[in-house]
Amino acid sequence: MTVNDLVAAVAGADEDAQEAAFQRHAQLAKPPGSLGRLEELGAQLAGISGMCPPPVPSSPKVVVAAADHGVHAQGVSDWPQDVTQGMVATMATGGAAVNAIATTVGAEVVVLDVGTVRTGPAPEDVVDARVRSGTRDLVESPAMTLDECKRAVAAGAGLAARLVAGGCDLIVSGEVGLTNTTASACLYAALTGVPAEDVVGKGANVTHDRTARKLAVVERALVRHGDDRDPLRTLASLGGLEHAALVGVMLAGAAARVPVVVDGVIAGAAAVVAVQLCPTAADYLIPGHTSAEVGGELLAKQLGVTPLLDLGLRLGEGTGALLAVPIVQAAARVLTDMADLSSVIAAPS
Amino acid sequence: MTVNDLVAAVAGADEDAQEAAFQRHAQLAKPPGSLGRLEELGAQLAGISGMCPPPVPSSPKVVVAAADHGVHAQGVSDWPQDVTQGMVATMATGGAAVNAIATTVGAEVVVLDVGTVRTGPAPEDVVDARVRSGTRDLVESPAMTLDECKRAVAAGAGLAARLVAGGCDLIVSGEVGLTNTTASACLYAALTGVPAEDVVGKGANVTHDRTARKLAVVERALVRHGDDRDPLRTLASLGGLEHAALVGVMLAGAAARVPVVVDGVIAGAAAVVAVQLCPTAADYLIPGHTSAEVGGELLAKQLGVTPLLDLGLRLGEGTGALLAVPIVQAAARVLTDMADLSSVIAAPS
Repeated sequence: MTVNDLVAAVAGADEDAQEAAFQRHAQLAKPPGSLGRLEELGAQLAGISGMCPPPVPSSPKVVVAAADHGVHAQGVSDWPQDVTQGMVATMATGGAAVNAIATTVGAEVVVLDVGTVRTGPAPEDVVDARVRSGTRDLVESPAMTLDECKRAVAAGAGLAARLVAGGCDLIVSGEVGLTNTTASACLYAALTGVPAEDVVGKGANVTHDRTARKLAVVERALVRHGDDRDPLRTLASLGGLEHAALVGVMLAGAAARVPVVVDGVIAGAAAVVAVQLCPTAADYLIPGHTSAEVGGELLAKQLGVTPLLDLGLRLGEGTGALLAVPIVQAAARVLTDMADLSSVIAAPS
Repeated sequence: MTVNDLVAAVAGADEDAQEAAFQRHAQLAKPPGSLGRLEELGAQLAGISGMCPPPVPSSPKVVVAAADHGVHAQGVSDWPQDVTQGMVATMATGGAAVNAIATTVGAEVVVLDVGTVRTGPAPEDVVDARVRSGTRDLVESPAMTLDECKRAVAAGAGLAARLVAGGCDLIVSGEVGLTNTTASACLYAALTGVPAEDVVGKGANVTHDRTARKLAVVERALVRHGDDRDPLRTLASLGGLEHAALVGVMLAGAAARVPVVVDGVIAGAAAVVAVQLCPTAADYLIPGHTSAEVGGELLAKQLGVTPLLDLGLRLGEGTGALLAVPIVQAAARVLTDMADLSSVIAAPS
């Protein structure tokens, strides 16, 4: 499926079902509005599924898109690049934070290698869809060609479509890739127009000294990129292969009317690209966790809602978004299971 | 068990296990500190259990303490008093919000009637431990005698001890009782010294006009009560039977070294009483959800931590705290399941 096909396949949320959810909430055995964000979320799920009550998501899967970045050569991380591959291997054997949290919330981890730097084969159970071995250095040249970028989007979209076909009814977006907060900062700045210093954070493992270096790198990349705000060309120029794959995951989820929970700063940058390509896709995105990194606020502004959680996580992998999965499930379940207030008031005293 | 016995039975958290959890987190396959609140929570759970890694809670139960309030006669609620009994019946048949959310997170609901106004028997499966049929009107006289208050504490403590003996390893505090935000406001003001206008909120279902009435009621009650800040006498004078029961639940949980997740404004008022009676009990309490009601900040100040969630819930029942259960479980599981960073860095690239 091309990006244009994906965008065209996304239909808006069902406003009647949304409205029915709000009306249902007003009748349930509780004061109107007293379930706060769960009520808004329930209406969103109704709009997504076109049903009220919406089905309770029972088969959540977290897609961890993995890739490396040429900009690592600029010295923007404390860690060697092969940590990406080490984390992919750790996720494949169940030893990463994303695995522990997925187990807790009953989700399955699916790792998608869309562009890590490695010499051997991908670990068993990792979906191998490498477009190239890491991006080019985004300071020096576009990180990807437009064609590479489109292939990475298609890899994510194809995986998401297969997961949905297999019964997945809630997608969580995660990622791993050394220095991908640098690429994310470039995307936020280029796509939203905010100054680089407002979007460069510490990253998952960067000391203060490296933050200054990171800012300089982002500023050089933005000068190199120029004024082009076309979402897909900007993604190719400044993003990572995992960003592109997550854009595909989000658009394919939206096209299949499946909600996608968005994790922190990197998945958030992908979400900004996705909604700029396809504003309607925002109906299907649920910001799960804000980022201790900058960018969280920008995403909230782009999507029009604040993330569900703020637990100070800054790891990525999908960890924060996974913790929001039970909240999403609860929002559907209250609409399904709760009695009417009329039955309470009429109950024998 | 008397209140004094309960307080004496609470031993402090195991500081060695706490420290071991922080050290373990520094070695796991992630940047140090990148799991934010999960790391603090993991250390708290280690301190509670005396083990690192702490056991992953697998049998959470929410205790919903139910009672009525004589102050309802002052017209501080839009709803008739028998809604309490109606909600107890709804919970007993699985139709309340607390049931839907408990199902979502794999928790069991246990309703404890410690003082509702009713003429018939308690619904099946409701633990019937009524101390009296609602409190007295706290504007006119102490809501409970000291003896009644102690019996309600013992009812909560006894139930918690039985649940723990039956395998419960995570307790969630919930409540239901018309006008219990009024009693909670009285407790916050009397025990922390903040002015009444800072602790009187809208309640779950109160219009603006009633807020003014509620404030006047709280101010009259505080004048009637006087300067006594003794936690138990203040609880008896201004609290509800469900507050007292939850104090018992919290102290018994702490005595049994089981974590107790604290819900919103009413359970929060009980937590303030519990930690004033027994400061060490704070080691075992986990604020699950802040309250859209006032009081949330006060509780955070008393316990020294901010609640895990802020989803705009203002229903009570334990709904907000239940949504925090997977976060607590995840905090334990990352310490159990995660690989060491050394294995990642050493992995073949």
